[in-house]
Amino acid sequence: MIPNLNLVPFVSVDHMMKLVLHIGVERFLSELAGYVEDDFRRWPAFDKTPRVASHSAEGVIELMPTSDGEVYGFKYVNGHPKNTREGRQTVTAFGVLSDVANGYPVLMSEMTILTALRTAATSAVAARYLAPQGADCMAIIGNGAQSEFQAMAFKALLGIRKLRLFDIDPQATQKCMKNLHGLGFEITACTSTEQAVEGAHIITTVTADKQCATILTDNMVGAGVHINAVGGDCPGKTELHHDILLRSDIFVEYPPQTRIEGEIQQLPADHPVIELWEVMTGQVSGRRDPRQITLFDSVGFAIEDFSALRYVRDQLRSVGLYQNLDMLADPDEPRDLFGMILRAQAAQTPPVAVGG
Amino acid sequence: MIPNLNLVPFVSVDHMMKLVLHIGVERFLSELAGYVEDDFRRWPAFDKTPRVASHSAEGVIELMPTSDGEVYGFKYVNGHPKNTREGRQTVTAFGVLSDVANGYPVLMSEMTILTALRTAATSAVAARYLAPQGADCMAIIGNGAQSEFQAMAFKALLGIRKLRLFDIDPQATQKCMKNLHGLGFEITACTSTEQAVEGAHIITTVTADKQCATILTDNMVGAGVHINAVGGDCPGKTELHHDILLRSDIFVEYPPQTRIEGEIQQLPADHPVIELWEVMTGQVSGRRDPRQITLFDSVGFAIEDFSALRYVRDQLRSVGLYQNLDMLADPDEPRDLFGMILRAQAAQTPPVAVGG
Repeated sequence: MIPNLNLVPFVSVDHMMKLVLHIGVERFLSELAGYVEDDFRRWPAFDKTPRVASHSAEGVIELMPTSDGEVYGFKYVNGHPKNTREGRQTVTAFGVLSDVANGYPVLMSEMTILTALRTAATSAVAARYLAPQGADCMAIIGNGAQSEFQAMAFKALLGIRKLRLFDIDPQATQKCMKNLHGLGFEITACTSTEQAVEGAHIITTVTADKQCATILTDNMVGAGVHINAVGGDCPGKTELHHDILLRSDIFVEYPPQTRIEGEIQQLPADHPVIELWEVMTGQVSGRRDPRQITLFDSVGFAIEDFSALRYVRDQLRSVGLYQNLDMLADPDEPRDLFGMILRAQAAQTPPVAVGG
Repeated sequence: MIPNLNLVPFVSVDHMMKLVLHIGVERFLSELAGYVEDDFRRWPAFDKTPRVASHSAEGVIELMPTSDGEVYGFKYVNGHPKNTREGRQTVTAFGVLSDVANGYPVLMSEMTILTALRTAATSAVAARYLAPQGADCMAIIGNGAQSEFQAMAFKALLGIRKLRLFDIDPQATQKCMKNLHGLGFEITACTSTEQAVEGAHIITTVTADKQCATILTDNMVGAGVHINAVGGDCPGKTELHHDILLRSDIFVEYPPQTRIEGEIQQLPADHPVIELWEVMTGQVSGRRDPRQITLFDSVGFAIEDFSALRYVRDQLRSVGLYQNLDMLADPDEPRDLFGMILRAQAAQTPPVAVGG
């Protein structure tokens, strides 16, 4: 018998926050980015499938599975833009890693915070290959829940210290400034997107409306800029004007998914795009020219969640911030599941009180 | 603010056993069968998709989602036939129910035990429509983990009291007899399938080999019998001789999945089958004739898991056998996820010990 076959380590929201604080936000993002990059570099090794989505009038619930043949992972994630009206998160998530050899889960984790971290880490990894040399100023259009994570990841991985913030809601900008205060940034609050992108080498768009919006128009995007388009991530939700796409070299995670969900849903299905993993393995160039406009059309792919869960799993042994869940039936004899229930009954002497 | 938006009720293996014992196995199976039947009767209301499978040399890991437009559910389940060699279960599972309106999970539950219960409950519901009038004797071929659950469900729903057991491993039969001792059965241990099916009105096949086997040959199946074929449930795994299928009226859960996974994978893709839900709603006849051979080609479908999770959820308020998991990030202000981490840091005075 292997002991404790019934137990699965679970990382709660509280433990995830403590884990992030224990490691430090910037180090966490840098190390997580390493895991993301490692997995992008072995991209062909993964089973890949577009997410399995269940759409409703209010939003979407998705399952995002993948496997490298040794480890299997999936994320459950919802997207409900109206949730904030009643104090709920637009996006919540949790995920599981399992051992492919026996199918047993080896980790369950909250992934609302972890998704925010992996999205930012992936953006920053992409920007290391795509942003102009010497970039030190980033505009962030949309100052909601993802904005600070983007700022921290670009500071940790690219040394970005100058931020130019804009949101149609000035309170969101104030919240973002307050949260980033004292963390080493030089921040300018702007009153328009036009003002925010002035002098920025990197433009991050991370707005949340579930509709096609034009956050960036063509005239706002000058030569040499890298656009990190994070907010357009489902059918009918885009942020960039069509003409920007035509002037950009477009980099994507997994084309079959991005063509449905990303900015490129505005383009013909055969419009050329470059797969990010091919840039990371050196098969294709990233930025070739200081005047080139590069666009990372980010929608989030299952492999990034897989990387994030792998990273968390690898921290648990030394850090210990988890609880064990009694999640898997573990009878003494595998064929004797019913007998396990009978033995639980026999053990109830005196009978267990089972009231509410 | 709605309180405790972060918490999701979790039913562990221990709580599930206590819940089953608190309610009683037979009553649990009967009530669960009612939920299964209710959901089959509103079959067209569900989003249906074949399971999302990740196959490997050792087995398979599957996600089985469905939704009725108000509630979403999915099950994670693995199937690894060699697991028993190292003391693990062949099949383990857990599942989640969520609110479609906001995407928030409302229940997480172990489903290894619950799947065993719902499989048996579904078999018995089907048999109520398909088994011959006055059936009181069932053969069970394969006396592994599912066998006792089948026996209990057929006793609870159809009043079956005579069991004829056979397994190629006599120890499995002994285990099954021992577990069912004192529960109101009249049990005959048999030394062959031929002997076991003698005089049986219902034949349940529930063997576990991951290969095409011929558990039942054509000569063993007489007129008027109902066959409850539970064990053949994935590509390359069947239990019945081809000729039995040609003599039977075949009833299935969800044809696109059963044609891949069920006994009917042996037949042409256009061989007529009857959908069980149409029998339950009265649109199509079940058993029409005392000499008819009926076959329920059971593979297990997502809606049955959905029914089982609904049933468990509805018991929790009164019975209270669950724990709350801190699974969903719940900042005071939904856009302020990063601020929640900062506040957790501020609350760490003196710093929390985070060692292993």
